[in-house]
Amino acid sequence: MFSPKDAEQETRALEQVLAAYSYYKSFAQQEYYLPRYKKWRSLSDHQKELIPWYGDYLEKLRNAIDCNAAFLQEVVFFAQAMMGISSNVDQWPTPSRVDMEKTVSMISQIYREWSQESKCERGLATDRILQALQAYEKQSVTSRDEIRILIPGAGTGRLMADLVIQGYNCESNEFSYHMLLMSMYILNGGLKVNQKKIYPFIHTFSHWRSRNDQLKSICIPDFNVQEQLAQNNRMAMSSGSFIDCYGSNEKIRASNTYSASPTMKLTRAQMESAFNVVITNFFIDTASNIIDYLHSISHVLIPGGIWINFGPLLYHFECDDQVEDTFEVDPFTGEKTDVHEDVPLKGLELTADEILEVSISKLQFKCLNKEFAIPSGYGRSPSQNAVPGYMCNYWVLQNDKVRQT
Amino acid sequence: MFSPKDAEQETRALEQVLAAYSYYKSFAQQEYYLPRYKKWRSLSDHQKELIPWYGDYLEKLRNAIDCNAAFLQEVVFFAQAMMGISSNVDQWPTPSRVDMEKTVSMISQIYREWSQESKCERGLATDRILQALQAYEKQSVTSRDEIRILIPGAGTGRLMADLVIQGYNCESNEFSYHMLLMSMYILNGGLKVNQKKIYPFIHTFSHWRSRNDQLKSICIPDFNVQEQLAQNNRMAMSSGSFIDCYGSNEKIRASNTYSASPTMKLTRAQMESAFNVVITNFFIDTASNIIDYLHSISHVLIPGGIWINFGPLLYHFECDDQVEDTFEVDPFTGEKTDVHEDVPLKGLELTADEILEVSISKLQFKCLNKEFAIPSGYGRSPSQNAVPGYMCNYWVLQNDKVRQT
Repeated sequence: MFSPKDAEQETRALEQVLAAYSYYKSFAQQEYYLPRYKKWRSLSDHQKELIPWYGDYLEKLRNAIDCNAAFLQEVVFFAQAMMGISSNVDQWPTPSRVDMEKTVSMISQIYREWSQESKCERGLATDRILQALQAYEKQSVTSRDEIRILIPGAGTGRLMADLVIQGYNCESNEFSYHMLLMSMYILNGGLKVNQKKIYPFIHTFSHWRSRNDQLKSICIPDFNVQEQLAQNNRMAMSSGSFIDCYGSNEKIRASNTYSASPTMKLTRAQMESAFNVVITNFFIDTASNIIDYLHSISHVLIPGGIWINFGPLLYHFECDDQVEDTFEVDPFTGEKTDVHEDVPLKGLELTADEILEVSISKLQFKCLNKEFAIPSGYGRSPSQNAVPGYMCNYWVLQNDKVRQT
Repeated sequence: MFSPKDAEQETRALEQVLAAYSYYKSFAQQEYYLPRYKKWRSLSDHQKELIPWYGDYLEKLRNAIDCNAAFLQEVVFFAQAMMGISSNVDQWPTPSRVDMEKTVSMISQIYREWSQESKCERGLATDRILQALQAYEKQSVTSRDEIRILIPGAGTGRLMADLVIQGYNCESNEFSYHMLLMSMYILNGGLKVNQKKIYPFIHTFSHWRSRNDQLKSICIPDFNVQEQLAQNNRMAMSSGSFIDCYGSNEKIRASNTYSASPTMKLTRAQMESAFNVVITNFFIDTASNIIDYLHSISHVLIPGGIWINFGPLLYHFECDDQVEDTFEVDPFTGEKTDVHEDVPLKGLELTADEILEVSISKLQFKCLNKEFAIPSGYGRSPSQNAVPGYMCNYWVLQNDKVRQT
């Protein structure tokens, strides 16, 4: 764990997410089931008779919530056992609404990453990534087990699992405890194929063609994860912010997600030229300052290493009104200098062309491949009618910098 | 004006929207320009040098906001002149954040409805609608100028204009003062082709391929509206909620959007079998109770009349936490009976198949045509990369009820 927070703070943050998982059932009932039950009950008898099946539907919706809740509760028990947390939900910090919404989104995250039904959707990214890796392997004359790959924003770890099974060495980085908890369970829980049932589509009520599409259950995982990953040492995970753990020690200003502590500085120094490949898969638009991401990618890549990107540019902070202070830290006195107060998290949303332009003309990358406007869902239901898609960008850039000797 | 609100309340509501239009400039600067300026200023010199053009970009963004603001201000002046409102913005009620967000969305609404660039996008709906109308004309042996069409949720009136120019009689209904103000200006402002310039895409910072795509200006209108519509009496507009103005006097429970006042009851009684055609174009998902919409459509159609629907099912209230009371009103005493308190606006989000099933098996419609999963944007930029699309449904249902004699 690289995080700069002290252990106690980290434990509380983790407990808060465990609590959010635990409260899914009451939250989902309150948010999705109860208002619809109340609305239905308020209808005139005449209108109720027009939709005689609606009561049954609401019952199925409630049962589906129960099923998801049981799954999430199992993740909590597993995490408690693995991490020796003997306290219980009554002793944990109360989760925020955002925590609860993230918990709900974990259900479709799991569907996206670990279901047979999402295979084609994942393939849009994975097939391109594997192709780029094979080309790199060939061009750099590096044997596969010597290729070190970094995957920032790894989610629940599916891409890492796919690549490790193919023989690559992967290190995943993830900032979200919601994701980290789930990946711990999936990667280590010893699940058999299709052992767990979830209802990934019950949280959205728009865009459906038929009711069965919304109520469809799916099973995960689509392969025996632990068995396939057993006895290999080609896999590592880190928790924390990407730029904090892997950024350069120059060029990035300190903030809530980048500490100037000696420990982190040391960690980051060790990450210089530590990877052959960085893969950003539905990740770069999570940046509050995308140039910090570019510096970090450049920092960790060896000369000749490649950056593979796949995903849309749906900037996560575009509509966020939060602010933070950014500053430099005097290396001798440790004092903050050049402080900018209340810097918005939003802003600096570079376009695809601009990211490429900065990378190529200023950061010594060269472009090996690019493709734009690839339509892809993210956890889209098999009925295809449910969720609007993203237009994804794909590119492979090679780090053209000369090794400093 | 059918609205049940008294005149004073209506005037204040209208003034509040005029104020929202007037405050666009300061809102948009605060929301879109200033945070990005502040973020850019907070960058290290090194990072600023990587994007030397960014200062120019922000200047262009600010100028684009000014241009949109000037356009909206003109709408305000025009509306004031037409309606004889001599007070000014300092005397008007303060708009809410939602009012301001709706004002921002008017810029892309105008682009969607009145630009040459959106012609293909509009055509997805309009071509199908015209085809259905021609088939109806032929089948019902009704001459075009005798066909009375109702368009609930008419927006700023483009579909009505297109149909009136083709010789049909149209009545539009719209609930939103934001829309009504704008349509008043566009339909009566005497604009020449391409007379006004707006920047429809500057309010979103995600999904762009190139910066020019975001900064693209477009001109409206794509034809001389007033000239083409001059001297015809085939056009009418009503303001208010669809079910309040056109609903049946039975089967719908009273609420914030359906009054049981004698005036409205009389109005609605007059609307029975008043139209040959109802066209819902990106409208039915605005329902809080879609069955009320179905009753209303059935109520206003003559036997043999048709309902043409085009649009997605992105239920507007799906995530809305507001509630309202619904009740019956005793026709003799005027007292509320069977009151349901705090009924959620969300709920009852029927799927496409369910809407058709209820309409056909319970409300005596028969299906003449249907088509699902038609991809369409709504004010999507010409670069196509900007905004995820909708999956639209299209259907034509014929009212099969027998005339009550």
